[in-house]
This record gives sequence, C-alpha cells and structure tokens, in this order.
Amino acid sequence: MLVNGKHYRTVWMEGKSVHMINQPLLPHQFVIYTAGDHRQTAEAIRTMIIRGAGAIGVAAGYALAQAVLEAPDAGFEGYISDAFKTISSTRPTAQNLFYALDRVSKAVKAAAGPDKARQLAVNEAESIADEDVASGKRIGELGNSLIKDGYRIMTHCNAGWLAFADWGSALAPVYFAARDNKKVFVWVDETRPRLQGANLTAWELSSENIPLAVISDNAAGYYMRRGEVDLMIVGSDRIAVNGDVANKIGTYEKAVLAHENGIPFYVAAPTSTIDWNCQSGVDIPIEERSGEEVLFITGMDNDGTLRKVRIAPDCVKARNPAFDVTPAEYIKAIITEKGIVEPKNLCSLRN
Amino acid sequence: MLVNGKHYRTVWMEGKSVHMINQPLLPHQFVIYTAGDHRQTAEAIRTMIIRGAGAIGVAAGYALAQAVLEAPDAGFEGYISDAFKTISSTRPTAQNLFYALDRVSKAVKAAAGPDKARQLAVNEAESIADEDVASGKRIGELGNSLIKDGYRIMTHCNAGWLAFADWGSALAPVYFAARDNKKVFVWVDETRPRLQGANLTAWELSSENIPLAVISDNAAGYYMRRGEVDLMIVGSDRIAVNGDVANKIGTYEKAVLAHENGIPFYVAAPTSTIDWNCQSGVDIPIEERSGEEVLFITGMDNDGTLRKVRIAPDCVKARNPAFDVTPAEYIKAIITEKGIVEPKNLCSLRN
Repeated sequence: MLVNGKHYRTVWMEGKSVHMINQPLLPHQFVIYTAGDHRQTAEAIRTMIIRGAGAIGVAAGYALAQAVLEAPDAGFEGYISDAFKTISSTRPTAQNLFYALDRVSKAVKAAAGPDKARQLAVNEAESIADEDVASGKRIGELGNSLIKDGYRIMTHCNAGWLAFADWGSALAPVYFAARDNKKVFVWVDETRPRLQGANLTAWELSSENIPLAVISDNAAGYYMRRGEVDLMIVGSDRIAVNGDVANKIGTYEKAVLAHENGIPFYVAAPTSTIDWNCQSGVDIPIEERSGEEVLFITGMDNDGTLRKVRIAPDCVKARNPAFDVTPAEYIKAIITEKGIVEPKNLCSLRN
Repeated sequence: MLVNGKHYRTVWMEGKSVHMINQPLLPHQFVIYTAGDHRQTAEAIRTMIIRGAGAIGVAAGYALAQAVLEAPDAGFEGYISDAFKTISSTRPTAQNLFYALDRVSKAVKAAAGPDKARQLAVNEAESIADEDVASGKRIGELGNSLIKDGYRIMTHCNAGWLAFADWGSALAPVYFAARDNKKVFVWVDETRPRLQGANLTAWELSSENIPLAVISDNAAGYYMRRGEVDLMIVGSDRIAVNGDVANKIGTYEKAVLAHENGIPFYVAAPTSTIDWNCQSGVDIPIEERSGEEVLFITGMDNDGTLRKVRIAPDCVKARNPAFDVTPAEYIKAIITEKGIVEPKNLCSLRN
C-alpha cells in the first residue's frame, strides 16, 4: 500500500538484510528498521517490531533465508538448525511462522549443497512473501462480496496490510469495497493491551480515507446491541482443523457478542494460517506476554516525545494472555484466498 | 477505609466547603481536593475528580447544601433552583445524583424560612452520606454470603469505597470475605477508557492486601472460558424497574460472557440507585463523553511526572459512550442493603 505516495511492503529482503516498517513507532513515526542477520530479525519478531499473522510468517521465512546465507559451509546444517530454533521460539501461537520455516527448511533440504541451498532459500522466502500478497488481494476480492453499500464494519486488532506483506486479511475486503465506491465505515476496537487497533488499523484506514471511529474494546458490545454494526471481520493467528480460531485477545469476547446480537462474524485468513496438525482450538498454545504490556502504555506526549507511562499502582501484578480461541460455533465463515467456507467445511480447502 | 493508617471517607463537608479525594490522581498521588462553593463541587463531579455511583450522589447532596448555604435571603429559591440545574446537568446517567438532589430539595421545601432550610439541607446531605456508608456495609455483609473460600471474583470498573462515601458496593462483599479470612482473588478489568479498574480498584484492593491481577478488558472472556472465574460482581449507576442495569461501558459485554460461561453475574448497589420512574433500560440516558478519553491516556512517567499521551493518529475520531445497559436476563441477582433479589423481583424492595 502507499505511504505518503510511495508503495511499501511491510517487510522485504535486500541482500543479507531484512527491512521492515517499525510498527511500535506507528502511528507517530514512520521508520524502517533493518535487521542485518537472522538473530536480529528473530528479535524483531519477538519484540513485535514486526507483528501480524502474515508478516510474522514472511519475516520468519526471510530470517531463515538470512541464516542460510550466513551459514558456513562447514557446520552448514547445524547453523541452520540452531537458527530454526531461535526463530521458531519467538511467537508460539503464530501458525504462519511455522508454515514459513517449514517451507524454507524443505527448500534447503531439497538443495544439492550449500550454494544451491542459499539460492533456493531466498527464492522460497520471496515466494512466501509474494503468495502472501496474492492471498491478501484475493481475500479482498472475495470478502468484498459480503460488504453492502453503507455497511458499518467492526474489526479487532490489526489484520490490515501491516499484518501481512501487503493488503492484509480482515481489512483487504474493506479496501476493495472502498475502491468499488461502496460507502463503508469501520468501528476500530482499540485492542488493548498493545493498542494495534488505535495505533495501526486507525492509521491504515485513515491513510486510505476510510471513515472510522476508534472505540474502547468495552464499547464494541454497546454498538452491536444498538444495531450499529452490520458485519464483523477479524484476522487469525492460527486456525484449527475443526474451525476454532486463535486470534488477538478479545476476539472471543467480540465473537460471542456478535453471535448474541445476530451479527455475522467472519474470520479472514490465508490458508497458510490453517494448522492441519491441530485438530481443535484447545490444542493451540496461547502465548502469555509480560504483564508490563498491561501496566504501561506508550504514546506521544504533546511535545512530540514517545513516552511510556504507568497506569496502575506500583505494587500490583497483571496477567497478559496475547491470544484467545474463538470456537467455530461463533464464526459464520472463514474468508480465504481459496474461497469463503463455513468453519465445519474447512477440510474442503486442503489439497 | 484506611489510607496510610488514617480513616477517610471519599467525600465530606466541613462548613461551606466540600472535600474529596482527587481520584484522577490515584494511584499515583493521594491529594484532597476542596470545592469552596457549589459550582466547584458540580465541576468536580463533571470532570470526575469525584466519580462512582454513591460518591456522585453524596457529592451532589453536599453541592446542593452548599448552594442553600450560599443563597441570599432575597432570591433564595431562584438561587437554589439554578444550582439544582447546574448540579443535575453534570452526569446524566447517575441515578444517585438525582436521588440526592431530590432529597435535599424536599428538605429545603419543607423548611420554614431560609435559616431553617440551611440547617435542614446540611443535615439531609449528611444523612445521605451516612446512609451510603451504612448501605455499603450491609451490602458487604449480605454479599459475603455468596463468596466461598478460594473464590476468584471478577469485577469491572470501580465500585469500591472510592465510588461511595465508604465501603462501596461491588467490592464491599470482597472486603467482608477477606475479613472473614476467606481466601479471595480478584480479576480486575482495567476498564478502558478511564482505567478505573487499573487505577482505583487495584489501588483499593492492594491497600487491603487482597490478591489481584489487572487484566485488559479483552482478557475477561478468556479467563471466564478457562473456568478461572467463580463469580462476577459489578456496581451500577442506575437500575430500571424491570431489573435492567446501567453501569460502566463494557459491563454488558462481561455480563453476556459470564452468562455464556455459566458464571453467576451479580450487581451490587444501594436501593438509592433504583430509578422507580424508569421502567426499562432503554429509557436510561447514556452519557457520551469526549473521544479524547479514548485517544489519550494519562499515567506516571518513570521520572514521577503524570503525563497524558496520545495513542492514535492525529487525524482520527473516537466514540466514547460512558455506560451501557445490561438486560436483566444476564443478571443472577442484585445485592442491595435490603436484601439480595432477582432482577424480576426488584419491586419487592420498594416501600
């Protein structure tokens, strides 16, 4: 998508370096972060300089490709195996991370010798990125069919282009609807604790001139009950075979409320987010992050300085599960690049 | 309750002045704010220096008593009538505000002449405060019977002693349970946008050495679904005759989720919160506050300075309903000083 008139992907590779939009600085500063080796890229994933289901996958593919480029001919496989562990330990819930690592690993294993492996690893990582872009575009085209003129769409967290290499999942249909000249309005859940809605989704949508209102996560149910929400679309970090969906903490709450209020609740995700080895949502590991993310908030002071402020007494603890699982029963359908399917029919997408 | 070993009420009157704990500065600073006349007290209610169902009522009673003390003998009734309007326009959803204004008004009207009216107004305002304290204590005793040893209790916003003159509503049963040596643990919804949970409830509970964890509002459903919540208790700003309950934004969400997960959801409130003129929740006016409360967050910088930071792009708008209505069907019972009743039996409390 365009930033100040120039096209960017969220993350891309040049030579041995991986470049990415530094997301914790958004919307206040637009800065490109460069990771010079696979460890820096892994750390950028862990600390969420890059975040979002697809973007994590693309970055992980690039990180492993970096490791393959870095690996000495002597000890080639051991170096890559260590790198695999480093990268895979960064975000335990993210299916796309494992999907990308597996694909790059397989390309390396299929190669005849280190030189060929280096070439194939980079090619595979680039393919993952290109496919991510193509999937987002297709999800946008398909999801657009669900959006009527005048729709008020609610979303949670950020599953826009910043969460992928480009286009996004949950927001891609909104972008396509807007380009079709449908009038759309987006309720943006601010998405505590990390505020990806207020920070990222609001920034993306306002850059595209799509009308929106940021709301506290607590107000989502209020607007649903008042009949001011026509459709809800969210992304996903991992989808189980039974159609249960892991996504940002709070998604489960909003899905239950949408169900209670008769509002269709959609999940948009590329099929790379489906974990075919995971039978049910209860098997999805849920990352618990530091309580500091709840107890402190970062924002822009009126003097233009980014500051981190404490919002609770010194002595208290916080708990901070980063994701939750929404049972399939609350989900009307899953919008993928291969079609829109009910959760119970997810297996029809396997090929 | 005790603050650093000294007993405080949240708000009290001395001579013509009303003193109150300055709540937006908590938990970072403990400061007493003094309102020298009724306009300053009204402004303190509007700007939420004092907030919470009962505390608003007590402060409103004191504010009108201040006006009665200030009113010149010539134009006595007009001055008080103007003051009534000023005070009643501060927080449209708060039933206790209107309850207190009505009581002080009636005392004034029953008096023979300005001097007697001044005496009766102050007495009535003091009675309202004393009854608030007694109600909170009784709610605590009654609600304690619902809490078993080892219970993990969730609460939303702050309906503790800071929200009343003393004791509180939703937290009073927790304080009584703890004094009964029951082991209790409290899940504290941080309660965006104004963070009364993280700021006030966490401060109250930690002052009483009651174990707690602050969570983002988005995580409430997650812990409910995992079976880690035994009971939920919240306060209320206005209760309709049919048992519908207005309370802090997000209460409706948590009530639906508690219902979905089979967790008993209680509302604790003195009967002064019941609006006998309001038949149903749809008739309760919902205050919409400035979007700035969503777009900016105030907290303590690491240099000990209170700072307000922006958490969204400059250009975007926010919507900020301060309350929502929880339909009676989601509420197991309402804990009042006159007994614990199912919402449908609320009329049994009228006498």
